[in-house]
Amino acid sequence: MKRAVVLLSGGVDSATTLAIAKEEGYELFALSFRYGQRHQIEVISAQRIAKSLGVKAHRVIEIDLRAIGGSALTDAIDVPKNRSENEISSGIPITYVPARNTIFLSYALAWAEVINAADIFIGVNALDYSGYPDCRPEFILQFQKLARLATKTGVEGKRYCIHAPLIDLTKAQIIAKGAKLGVQFSLTISCYDPASDGGACGECDSCLLRAKGFCEAGIPDPTRYAKLSS
Amino acid sequence: MKRAVVLLSGGVDSATTLAIAKEEGYELFALSFRYGQRHQIEVISAQRIAKSLGVKAHRVIEIDLRAIGGSALTDAIDVPKNRSENEISSGIPITYVPARNTIFLSYALAWAEVINAADIFIGVNALDYSGYPDCRPEFILQFQKLARLATKTGVEGKRYCIHAPLIDLTKAQIIAKGAKLGVQFSLTISCYDPASDGGACGECDSCLLRAKGFCEAGIPDPTRYAKLSS
Repeated sequence: MKRAVVLLSGGVDSATTLAIAKEEGYELFALSFRYGQRHQIEVISAQRIAKSLGVKAHRVIEIDLRAIGGSALTDAIDVPKNRSENEISSGIPITYVPARNTIFLSYALAWAEVINAADIFIGVNALDYSGYPDCRPEFILQFQKLARLATKTGVEGKRYCIHAPLIDLTKAQIIAKGAKLGVQFSLTISCYDPASDGGACGECDSCLLRAKGFCEAGIPDPTRYAKLSS
Repeated sequence: MKRAVVLLSGGVDSATTLAIAKEEGYELFALSFRYGQRHQIEVISAQRIAKSLGVKAHRVIEIDLRAIGGSALTDAIDVPKNRSENEISSGIPITYVPARNTIFLSYALAWAEVINAADIFIGVNALDYSGYPDCRPEFILQFQKLARLATKTGVEGKRYCIHAPLIDLTKAQIIAKGAKLGVQFSLTISCYDPASDGGACGECDSCLLRAKGFCEAGIPDPTRYAKLSS
């Protein structure tokens, strides 16, 4: 059975990506990170999702991006709230974490090499997150080239492949696809700034995109909010 | 003053690389890792070297490569001893750590972006470590391309540059260059399997290459050995 390492954050996109890898027949090795993000509740979601989709193994790696800083997700900077669609889609947001997907894919590559997998799945999306440079197709392709040069097995001929199956889908399309594959969205969390009990704020970019996605997909939104969003 | 992030392991190569970056006029930001390697004494060496060369800042990041495994440097696998030069230079050794330099450079890139540096120095060497895929020029060049695509500042036009000034030098040439630049080699440690007091084993690939380098450079070897090597 061919194996895949799947990056799993605990959100809608990575849960759907995991379900896609499963549908494609891979034995699943899920990889999550505790990186000093404000929303550590993500990791609990990731564990529940991994279990629900029957992964072979799930590793949670501790990394300390706070030592580096530079993002509203790791530093004491306010997460923007209630931005318009125009604001969300323009420029690079302060929730950008420097080189985050490069770091995440590097770990995924290391694990893939150890477990003898050639396939890595990442749930990046270039539409809703057009401002994030490391969510673009050209970044993914470049990392794939790097993977083949960076590793013992790559040099020996293994054709590492970085799969980004959601890269050109809208959030509504992602949700529709995930629902079709049986993803339990009630287990996922997307909020950048959840309450201490894990309830979503309903006002950050990620909450707004998620709510819009469920609405457009015509699928009931199972999100538990911490308070009524304005 | 232009800034550089310099990867600093605590060995001869990275110490010399740091001294080269200093000579080239950079303000120095040294970056080290605790990655579950057997030789944690490395980090203490790195701290002393960083201080001796007057770095602006030194960060030590904890990363858990043991969670991934796959190397004699992180797992309970014996480090090979007393290999011949032929054995050392042929094939990929079991001291290879999967995707290590990809992970290290990813962190360096993240920090470079945060502190507004465009330059990253890494002391890889393609001669003595020809077996390590992520010590080759083509890997370094590929990572440089990735850096420009992976980051906010890269997309905005910053030309990230990955410097590998030792890549085609022999160990003797590296030591001669370091000596000329005033590197205190007594502060460095190269051993893959040091004793608990930090003394070098004198028998692993790294000890053998180091001893040969000092010998060929005609520079007294300040290495403190744990026992007489056979």
